[in-house]
Amino acid sequence: MTAIGFIGLGVMGGPMAANLVRAGFDVAGFNRSPAKVQRLVDVGGRGAASAVAAAEGADVVITVLPDSPDVEAVLLDGVLDVLAPGAVVVDMSTIRPDVARSLAAAGDERGVRVLDAPVSGGEQGAVDATLSIMVGGDAAAFEAVRPVFDALGRTVVHVGPPGAGQTVKAANQLIVAGTLQLVAEALVFLDAHGVDRSRAVEVLAGGLAGSAVLDRKAAAMLAHEFTPGFRVDLHHKDLGIVTAAARDAGVAIPAGSLAATLMAALRAQGHGDLDHSALLLQVEQLSGRSAP
Amino acid sequence: MTAIGFIGLGVMGGPMAANLVRAGFDVAGFNRSPAKVQRLVDVGGRGAASAVAAAEGADVVITVLPDSPDVEAVLLDGVLDVLAPGAVVVDMSTIRPDVARSLAAAGDERGVRVLDAPVSGGEQGAVDATLSIMVGGDAAAFEAVRPVFDALGRTVVHVGPPGAGQTVKAANQLIVAGTLQLVAEALVFLDAHGVDRSRAVEVLAGGLAGSAVLDRKAAAMLAHEFTPGFRVDLHHKDLGIVTAAARDAGVAIPAGSLAATLMAALRAQGHGDLDHSALLLQVEQLSGRSAP
Repeated sequence: MTAIGFIGLGVMGGPMAANLVRAGFDVAGFNRSPAKVQRLVDVGGRGAASAVAAAEGADVVITVLPDSPDVEAVLLDGVLDVLAPGAVVVDMSTIRPDVARSLAAAGDERGVRVLDAPVSGGEQGAVDATLSIMVGGDAAAFEAVRPVFDALGRTVVHVGPPGAGQTVKAANQLIVAGTLQLVAEALVFLDAHGVDRSRAVEVLAGGLAGSAVLDRKAAAMLAHEFTPGFRVDLHHKDLGIVTAAARDAGVAIPAGSLAATLMAALRAQGHGDLDHSALLLQVEQLSGRSAP
Repeated sequence: MTAIGFIGLGVMGGPMAANLVRAGFDVAGFNRSPAKVQRLVDVGGRGAASAVAAAEGADVVITVLPDSPDVEAVLLDGVLDVLAPGAVVVDMSTIRPDVARSLAAAGDERGVRVLDAPVSGGEQGAVDATLSIMVGGDAAAFEAVRPVFDALGRTVVHVGPPGAGQTVKAANQLIVAGTLQLVAEALVFLDAHGVDRSRAVEVLAGGLAGSAVLDRKAAAMLAHEFTPGFRVDLHHKDLGIVTAAARDAGVAIPAGSLAATLMAALRAQGHGDLDHSALLLQVEQLSGRSAP
């Protein structure tokens, strides 16, 4: 049986670790909050007292952490050193592609393959094991841990060398933020012109303007229901990755940059804890259609 | 049998008129180019020598013309005057919502109901009778001509009062232009980072970044295949409608305005005859990834 060390049992990591237990893996989990470790134990996993303890003896270590420095701290300050050569680390956090590449290189020095495997699909996708998983790194390591991925997601694709998974996730976050903004603008535009917006969304969804954002988010936006979902704070963090990675590569992303600016403004106005579809509030405010 | 006058037998109007003939309607068609009239006659329609001649005796007149002044010229300079009270005019062009409202008012003075009913779905949708049709205007008139719409499209929705159809079409064009730009930026970003873009598109399409644009346009964009489809010139015209209508209503559309600017630049650079997905070329050029 594959032994898995799972580090980071939050909104995403918690249900993902539970799905691995259900799929028959031996999972040792660590989180700084003991209550979250206990939840894993309650569904049949093992608790670990530290990240290093979770990793000791593991064939596969999975990290699901907030940001680049968190992943660097966990992997470089102990975890990579306690793994046996041949072990695979799968970082499923959303972090900077360049950091993913440097972590893969740090693993190589120790005979440990490090894959970057960020996900899309949100908390519900984590619970339902229907995540989209975009994987960068060594192809043989990807095949070796494929059963682990299959227990977590529905669309699992190897997209290239180390960092490629994070690059695709960055592209994902660029498109999602921009599409949310476009839908927000369209909804305010339609409202200002007195159109029946539910019917309009129906016909828009059936044509070239159709999108997953329109399908999954428009109704909640019309209801001003902005419980996350995916928080503005996190999407703002991800758009920092997008803009930095575009700048590093010399790629002009005018629409992506605008989306990053508007998401940053929404956060600056105190809306960091709302769902990212709250971009609607800002378009309403800019258009004088709500209290400032 | 409902007698239909059909004015404008171009890329969209031609196949639409033919579908009405096939559905059993008596269709009299007019176009300035006699060759296009002949094509309608070849499939069983009747040819008319002028717009007014096509309208004479018709229960329903359909217009599919390039722009607002064309529709105004045809309806106000003769067609509305020759129709019997109770007739319905269905303008399926994409024009300014305020012009649609004034045409509906001009019809009211003569006892003729004028609906605005722009479409989405492109030439293929016109040929296959799978168009999305967004209709503004009198609800009873909409119900009266519903069999006509059903012979032309799959998603047919009454979205509000006169002008509402054009408003929804404007929102559609805003979202489509912006989404094309976002996908273009993502594709260049992925290429610059050495990612396998076909695989990346596969995983992006499965998540919240998924869209009809990604499904229908990304492969052609990757192949640099920009045969229209929908021409940059026409989308540029439509984005002029979008920005003017947003301005009229006091709605801020930062992403829509950016998309309009970028589409205008693409046209100014001589790409007006390419498919609108050629926004990719401009992102490549801005990123120094093609000859300027």
